[in-house]
Amino acid sequence: MDYLSKFEELKSKELSLDLTRGKPSSDQLDLSNGLMSFSENDFLYDGVDIRNYGEIKGLDSCRELGAEILGCSKEYVWAGGNSSLSLMSQFMSFLFVEGIGEGPWNSKKRVSVLCPVPGYDRHFNLCEKFGINMIPVSLTGTGPDLEEVKRLIDSDDSIRGMWCVPKYSNPTGEIYSHQTIDGLLEIFSKTKNKTLIFWDNAYAVHDLYDDPSFDDIFAMAETKGCEDVVVQFGSSSKITFAGAGIAFIAMSLNNQNMFLPFYSSLMIGPDKLNQARHVRFFNQVDLKEPRGGYFLLFEADKGLAKKIINLASELGLKLTPAGATHPYGLDEEDKFIRIAPTACSLDELDTAMDVFLCCIGLAYEQAQ
Amino acid sequence: MDYLSKFEELKSKELSLDLTRGKPSSDQLDLSNGLMSFSENDFLYDGVDIRNYGEIKGLDSCRELGAEILGCSKEYVWAGGNSSLSLMSQFMSFLFVEGIGEGPWNSKKRVSVLCPVPGYDRHFNLCEKFGINMIPVSLTGTGPDLEEVKRLIDSDDSIRGMWCVPKYSNPTGEIYSHQTIDGLLEIFSKTKNKTLIFWDNAYAVHDLYDDPSFDDIFAMAETKGCEDVVVQFGSSSKITFAGAGIAFIAMSLNNQNMFLPFYSSLMIGPDKLNQARHVRFFNQVDLKEPRGGYFLLFEADKGLAKKIINLASELGLKLTPAGATHPYGLDEEDKFIRIAPTACSLDELDTAMDVFLCCIGLAYEQAQ
Repeated sequence: MDYLSKFEELKSKELSLDLTRGKPSSDQLDLSNGLMSFSENDFLYDGVDIRNYGEIKGLDSCRELGAEILGCSKEYVWAGGNSSLSLMSQFMSFLFVEGIGEGPWNSKKRVSVLCPVPGYDRHFNLCEKFGINMIPVSLTGTGPDLEEVKRLIDSDDSIRGMWCVPKYSNPTGEIYSHQTIDGLLEIFSKTKNKTLIFWDNAYAVHDLYDDPSFDDIFAMAETKGCEDVVVQFGSSSKITFAGAGIAFIAMSLNNQNMFLPFYSSLMIGPDKLNQARHVRFFNQVDLKEPRGGYFLLFEADKGLAKKIINLASELGLKLTPAGATHPYGLDEEDKFIRIAPTACSLDELDTAMDVFLCCIGLAYEQAQ
Repeated sequence: MDYLSKFEELKSKELSLDLTRGKPSSDQLDLSNGLMSFSENDFLYDGVDIRNYGEIKGLDSCRELGAEILGCSKEYVWAGGNSSLSLMSQFMSFLFVEGIGEGPWNSKKRVSVLCPVPGYDRHFNLCEKFGINMIPVSLTGTGPDLEEVKRLIDSDDSIRGMWCVPKYSNPTGEIYSHQTIDGLLEIFSKTKNKTLIFWDNAYAVHDLYDDPSFDDIFAMAETKGCEDVVVQFGSSSKITFAGAGIAFIAMSLNNQNMFLPFYSSLMIGPDKLNQARHVRFFNQVDLKEPRGGYFLLFEADKGLAKKIINLASELGLKLTPAGATHPYGLDEEDKFIRIAPTACSLDELDTAMDVFLCCIGLAYEQAQ
């Protein structure tokens, strides 16, 4: 194929395409419009007037919905507002100003967290804002490299946590194996300091093809007596309405008791109307129905990611900036490109893939 | 009146009454049920699909609604989630880890804020959680004692902020006069450190009797060139649904530019469906219609507040604990009792007032 001619041909079309946005298309959002069927007599739910203040941990039945999504016990789950990222940031604030059993993070010289790469840019951004040092860890295809994790934790006293997106990891799509989860718990159950696993189970029920069973990390942790090392997050944002879903945080009762006084100082309670809406909706609709994967990862030869992204930009195709998959935006090998194919139409996606393939071809050709 | 006989008579009734909760009754919430009339074709608003991610500053028309409530320019206002307390805590986190133009608050030996008393317990609780030192300042009936404020700021280098509930101040109900606001701005425009006024305008449109005009503090600050010293908060929580309203934060463009990157790391955007619901509702209903005052303050003789609250408790009437109106729960004169009369029915309130008056009478009698 003559990539240069193809490139010039595509350029003449003056395209305007965007594969940067990790958000659902309107067609997918339409699947959840049933959420809106809500009558005026429905304001009493789980025995409370859901229009009023209160229920800091969320509506009882919504906590149950969260447990179903996260695949863990209901007692562990709180239902919050529309954003799991907000719950993460509130938990981060808590660690920062109070700590969890040991002193506040802000009183330490240096606090580090492990970040499997390629990973989720918003985890990295949150840490950066809180001044938390990030240490990249390799992914293996079935989760983080356990030997590397162990070596780092053993050798670096500043490590206090690790981000994990255990299922359909953003953006590699990999699923942590049972052995990996077991190995992680084995390591984290024995750290000198209280070191936490931030288990961002964002894609817990987002199975595109089959429905593989996935481990309940809390149940596994309980058998080792280390359930306090896991804090789990999730949401319905990528199931129902991206901007108006329900977010969840889940942790041991021990951790809940430590976090609750701080969390209670941040608000008087979540929006229970929206929680009840979601519970009702999923009483009628199968939780597994509104499906959606969100990201794909393209791994180029070393040193070509930026080049490909620049070429695509010349053709009017916006791609996520190179490095977004790594802490501080530093992909030192310049290899990874995150593709977000969900917000555009299928026709646009076809054209975008034409452009993308052409740019890859041209970049490889020019590199030879 | 024979208070002791009355006391015994009321005791025999085994009452169960509660004036602790600063939340609306169901009757009041009913006034806003129109919020729920929402059709499936209404998902495009202000040119965006309101079900999706995005619009970190809130829907344009909802920011306008916020400006109308707060009585300031729309450019200053962001519309958030269901809780102004959450916005305050997010701004506090920002100050804590980044600071605003000067270094982060957590890097300083000591950060103090001025707290007019009697004041709002949740402001105090938030500061306490963040380890911020609180210094009480007297209220005069038309706002804080300006001489005291000036003296404290001049003499204490650790002061970085001041809480104000300028209209129907919780729980005294007083309204800051034009002279007080002008005086505050005069003082805060000239502090050595960047010292902020946290302007919690929670009761901006909650006029029970008439509709007195109230100053736009930003407009006043602009004339002095010190609009950066004010950060304003507000919400519809005490207008529409207490737990499912819209909260607002307002500040100068300068401050917005500093806060935005941090705020953007905490979430991908607010619940715009609920924002659109509120905008539509107030297109049909006068903003001033759903009225409600929330707190009353009873000032007893010195040393009698706890006594009265204990007597009431014996009769089955729960009152907010003594001291709740002061930082760290310390009302050193033991004088102030906050009454929250909105959650109960009018009948219950009548009985509760019988009980309260009897307990006051008995407490004063026994103190003689």
